[in-house]
Amino acid sequence: MAPLEVEPIGRVESPLTDPASAPMQGDEGAPDAWLVFDPAVLEALRGVRPGDEVIVLTWLDRARRDVLSVHPRGDTSRPQQGVFSTRSQHRPNPIGLHPVEIVSIEGSRVRVRNLEALDGTPIVDVKPVLSREISER
Amino acid sequence: MAPLEVEPIGRVESPLTDPASAPMQGDEGAPDAWLVFDPAVLEALRGVRPGDEVIVLTWLDRARRDVLSVHPRGDTSRPQQGVFSTRSQHRPNPIGLHPVEIVSIEGSRVRVRNLEALDGTPIVDVKPVLSREISER
Repeated sequence: MAPLEVEPIGRVESPLTDPASAPMQGDEGAPDAWLVFDPAVLEALRGVRPGDEVIVLTWLDRARRDVLSVHPRGDTSRPQQGVFSTRSQHRPNPIGLHPVEIVSIEGSRVRVRNLEALDGTPIVDVKPVLSREISER
Repeated sequence: MAPLEVEPIGRVESPLTDPASAPMQGDEGAPDAWLVFDPAVLEALRGVRPGDEVIVLTWLDRARRDVLSVHPRGDTSRPQQGVFSTRSQHRPNPIGLHPVEIVSIEGSRVRVRNLEALDGTPIVDVKPVLSREISER
């Protein structure tokens, strides 16, 4: 089978540059950030508006792909768990899911709240939040 | 930059084989299905249990990647919208997010409820649902 190749559609611009001090989840003090889209995909943003809650998918390019178990949240007092039962960035396909709120849209630059992704992280998709999650809010 | 390559970690086994008649979302009458994992990643499933709600990430290998706008739900009476504000399978990086419940686990075969992905679809990741309570596990 041909390889499945992800094409970045943009990059994260964020004050977060240090993996060691970045928050683990967006609701743990992550800052606002910019999603800077490739102008070629701008048409795909039509209908996305300030105030919308979306899920940003990223490629966690500083993650390890050979890690299958971790101590949850890096806490070595907790037993190791398989990465599929955790939000660890380290996993065979390091795709990040980030629920964020759109603050503003300026051409190909989209301001979002509470994004824990590091500066320069490739963006691979944007989706509306899943219906099951909306009903939980 | 090197290409970002997704490695399938398994495949969906489902009675759904016809894209035209498959439900658009898992909560619209999708059947139970099996996630059949590559034995090499079994360790990553440790901690996933029957009853868990997880998000399965797939690579929608029958989607088109050159589509940036669609009529929502294929309804041509509705105005076109950018794919990032819809759940269309057609998008630059055709990654599917499927919230499902784990029914049972038999070795590398995991039975799940309400999965709208077609038979043979590559699986690329499994994550806990995004709700706050569960991400704090």
